[in-house]
Amino acid sequence: MTTEENRSPAIVTAAILVIGDEILSGRTKDKNIGYIAEYLTNIGIELREVRVVPDVTDEIVAALNALRARYGYVFTTGGIGPTHDDITADAVAAAFGVPIDYDPRAVAMLSERFSPEELNEARMRMARIPAGAELIANAISKAPGFNIGNVFVMAGVPAIMQAMLDVVAPTLRTGTKLLSDTVQAGLREGDIGGPLAVIAQAHPEVSIGSYPFWSETGPDTHIVVRSRDAGKLQAAMNAVKTMIESERQRRN
Amino acid sequence: MTTEENRSPAIVTAAILVIGDEILSGRTKDKNIGYIAEYLTNIGIELREVRVVPDVTDEIVAALNALRARYGYVFTTGGIGPTHDDITADAVAAAFGVPIDYDPRAVAMLSERFSPEELNEARMRMARIPAGAELIANAISKAPGFNIGNVFVMAGVPAIMQAMLDVVAPTLRTGTKLLSDTVQAGLREGDIGGPLAVIAQAHPEVSIGSYPFWSETGPDTHIVVRSRDAGKLQAAMNAVKTMIESERQRRN
Repeated sequence: MTTEENRSPAIVTAAILVIGDEILSGRTKDKNIGYIAEYLTNIGIELREVRVVPDVTDEIVAALNALRARYGYVFTTGGIGPTHDDITADAVAAAFGVPIDYDPRAVAMLSERFSPEELNEARMRMARIPAGAELIANAISKAPGFNIGNVFVMAGVPAIMQAMLDVVAPTLRTGTKLLSDTVQAGLREGDIGGPLAVIAQAHPEVSIGSYPFWSETGPDTHIVVRSRDAGKLQAAMNAVKTMIESERQRRN
Repeated sequence: MTTEENRSPAIVTAAILVIGDEILSGRTKDKNIGYIAEYLTNIGIELREVRVVPDVTDEIVAALNALRARYGYVFTTGGIGPTHDDITADAVAAAFGVPIDYDPRAVAMLSERFSPEELNEARMRMARIPAGAELIANAISKAPGFNIGNVFVMAGVPAIMQAMLDVVAPTLRTGTKLLSDTVQAGLREGDIGGPLAVIAQAHPEVSIGSYPFWSETGPDTHIVVRSRDAGKLQAAMNAVKTMIESERQRRN
């Protein structure tokens, strides 16, 4: 596998695959992408791509195979419940070309919550796990997620997904953390775009982002400097702050 | 072009391409996907896929070319501001293989807001438009989006994106609207998964989704029935309601 981190061991990459018609129809507003993105950044994993696909096996398989070949980890959300439209586990098994069947460990987990008569055929769907997968415990509603290869299959309900991510995180390889620092410019984006581009060119190993917003005094800009190297980050941020100060004075 | 709607004129499909490191780092929580998704559903366009990619030209080009070949429309958000990290217009030009240059119409729009000395090199970046594109007016901050082929390039700031979408929407081809109806089951998802699957099988032209949530009385389920045919939707929803009623009585 020629994932990007093989070339640079300090960088661990990831993608998110959100599975669900309800996100694409707009009925449900996704809350998982932003949460996982921030979480991964904080532990030193770089999120490189997100895809949202419908509850269609071929779409899930194609997207998952594209993402797992390219990135260090893939985190999926959605489609592991008890109803007919929950097809993620079967799709993941298909993507990996492995069989899927009732997993005794998953049945045991479900049995902690459900009586034998409650554990009907629908709920037993949640115990169907692709061969070779490890389970991800679900502290909230027991039905587990699972990990196969570099793919982590989690629930779509945010509280459950978050609990699963807490279980998964300590097992992940992480890279050098991407450090970031933010300064509020007190100037409009277009006022500083020119000198900011010069600074960006002079600091090629640092990523500089410019994000306009409305502050109490009117249009304003956040400049975000990011790097894995604290010294390089500091040098670029100093240049940004000096530039901002000079642009402010020029305008007064 | 073999987009899916050529095979079924009643269906118009779309994808969203969100462009921005700040979404992938979790710094900014996307608010555009859910908004556009709901908007498109309401006007009869079916959102089939979403991708989020970083501010990297090759990534934008690859994702855009994949999506525009496959779906009726592609809506992009982000990366059309005045700073060095705003590379969407150049990437779209590269994806279409057309030149990009200052567009006199876009310069005129920017001149409505900015004085000649304000219209510096950074702000003039926002007038760089791929050859052959039509502009999308920006009622809020003047800097336009643009439309080229089946791709609509919009701002990332939600208020501006929303204003642009209002401009774009009347120009879009729309299909037969996907109708939907929702019922609150008053039962847990796993309680009705079995009979719901039977109903889904008996109504193959209707899509039935099951979404667990917590109501005031505990775990509950929304059943969403969707179809382009009002009669088929009604028939399936009647079957769902009858099933729910019978399951409730069986439990009392």
